[in-house]
Amino acid sequence: MDAHRPDTVLGMSLAGRRCLVLGAGGFLGTHLCRALMEQNLPVRGFGRRVLFQDAIEGIEWRQGDFLDAASFPAIVAGCDTVFHLIGATTPSTAETNRVADITANVIPTLKLLDACVANGVRRVIFTSSGGTVYGNFPVMPIPETAPTEPISSYGIAKLTVEKYLAQYQRLYGLEYRILRIANAYGPFQMGTKGQGAIAAFLPRILARQPIEIWGDGHVVRDYAFAADIAAALVSSAAHQGSARVFNIGSGQGHSLIEIVRLIEAIMGAEVRIKWRPARPVDVARNILDIGLAERELNWRPQTSLEDGLRLTLAWMKNRLEG
Amino acid sequence: MDAHRPDTVLGMSLAGRRCLVLGAGGFLGTHLCRALMEQNLPVRGFGRRVLFQDAIEGIEWRQGDFLDAASFPAIVAGCDTVFHLIGATTPSTAETNRVADITANVIPTLKLLDACVANGVRRVIFTSSGGTVYGNFPVMPIPETAPTEPISSYGIAKLTVEKYLAQYQRLYGLEYRILRIANAYGPFQMGTKGQGAIAAFLPRILARQPIEIWGDGHVVRDYAFAADIAAALVSSAAHQGSARVFNIGSGQGHSLIEIVRLIEAIMGAEVRIKWRPARPVDVARNILDIGLAERELNWRPQTSLEDGLRLTLAWMKNRLEG
Repeated sequence: MDAHRPDTVLGMSLAGRRCLVLGAGGFLGTHLCRALMEQNLPVRGFGRRVLFQDAIEGIEWRQGDFLDAASFPAIVAGCDTVFHLIGATTPSTAETNRVADITANVIPTLKLLDACVANGVRRVIFTSSGGTVYGNFPVMPIPETAPTEPISSYGIAKLTVEKYLAQYQRLYGLEYRILRIANAYGPFQMGTKGQGAIAAFLPRILARQPIEIWGDGHVVRDYAFAADIAAALVSSAAHQGSARVFNIGSGQGHSLIEIVRLIEAIMGAEVRIKWRPARPVDVARNILDIGLAERELNWRPQTSLEDGLRLTLAWMKNRLEG
Repeated sequence: MDAHRPDTVLGMSLAGRRCLVLGAGGFLGTHLCRALMEQNLPVRGFGRRVLFQDAIEGIEWRQGDFLDAASFPAIVAGCDTVFHLIGATTPSTAETNRVADITANVIPTLKLLDACVANGVRRVIFTSSGGTVYGNFPVMPIPETAPTEPISSYGIAKLTVEKYLAQYQRLYGLEYRILRIANAYGPFQMGTKGQGAIAAFLPRILARQPIEIWGDGHVVRDYAFAADIAAALVSSAAHQGSARVFNIGSGQGHSLIEIVRLIEAIMGAEVRIKWRPARPVDVARNILDIGLAERELNWRPQTSLEDGLRLTLAWMKNRLEG
């Protein structure tokens, strides 16, 4: 079985269906556009800017701001499937200004959904946050059926959007899938916005600078390689079945210290650490149960953490030196 | 045991603590102010208008709009406990404009919570919606531990506020209690804003006009008498313990048809019904499990549905004729 061929495996063909990727110029968006183009699907991309133009050569690019809801009808028109990957805030900035978080994420998403309903979009795929919507659930790995008690504003806003998606499906028949994604990492991640420990670490390590760790380094996260996430997103677009919410991760947990040690082993270099105080909105442990996605999406992560780190490191080196 | 004496029963005394009631001039707010004054507690009330001036004579009234967040610090200053009863939308209007629902309820509530933290408020009591936050949970009565899958926008916004309350407690130590209230009815309910079937029915029945029922009249609801709800609110202000979310209702379910038949029996008159199409955001059945509130708040509903209807009818007659 090939997880990268959901059109042939999962009953519903995506052939010829136009896909819209919101946030196409960003980290995950770049991976998704490439995965969709590999399927020969027509791809329209929307976002404020393109980080890596060469990487998404061939998509139909529409520049715009997610706050400009008036543009949504024209942007979604003619699209079958909308991948909503825009996160206008990060976990850090969401906490600093909750109102701005709602205004920049939840409210534009409602306007987007209205535009989707009015323009005949068939399905919306939303990237939610497997790392935050569950809060401090005590049993690992966490299944999708666990209570959703986010302790961060970022997680609350993601969860709120999830609830509206379910409502739009019931009221207006707008189909949806929610991917609760673990800590994403990989090529094309910039690490400059406070998201992505690995992307923040690597350039500093390559420059022989110390890295910063918030807390004691024992917080455990589930690290998902971006290309694997993109494959899950593509699969979810073709999925038939009653399940609509999927954890997407590796199913494995690693502490920050383990990540640092692994990078040290790969690079053959010692990493210096500056310790910073722990942040109260960070959960202690987060490992996702990905069994449902494996069964329903015919998907599984293809990239080991070590391979993923090597690929990311190679890309980062190339970017910094090239 | 007397459910109306939480200060003596529940360990923490409220004596002398100033209470702020947001929405004090409205239906539930009027009942709550009276219950607090019966406890000899100093009461400050805030809201756009007072519906029944005589009923809350003696409170310190502050007129204002919930959208005017700049006024919040002065309004909460010096208050120990804040009862947040303001719902700027109804289930109907929330559905018509979800963005306005968020803007009028969720966002001002965040600003209110910030003002509470900054001004040393000890506890916030929030009236959530037991009738909508659970959605179509299949097993009755519904316990607080049931999944929260609201199918209405009204329920989604209430649930979102619940999540932020939990976060403010964790981050800033702002204590809170959430009362997920069933369908409230009783004196002081106007029935003019699309809220409250009983309040909407009674004036029409008294005027010998037909009533309107949306759907087939078999939707089942849990009807809670307003004075009983007020007693639960007062108890929750003094509650010590780890439980923070309580269903408040009667624990009994009644169909709209049953309500109409009961009113007919009390009045000795036949009620004419105009049937309207069902609304898709109305859940089919909603009966709350109130066992947790009974145990933890030392509270139970004191008023039978028949007694409550008689009291409400008497009040309504007096209002219309007096």
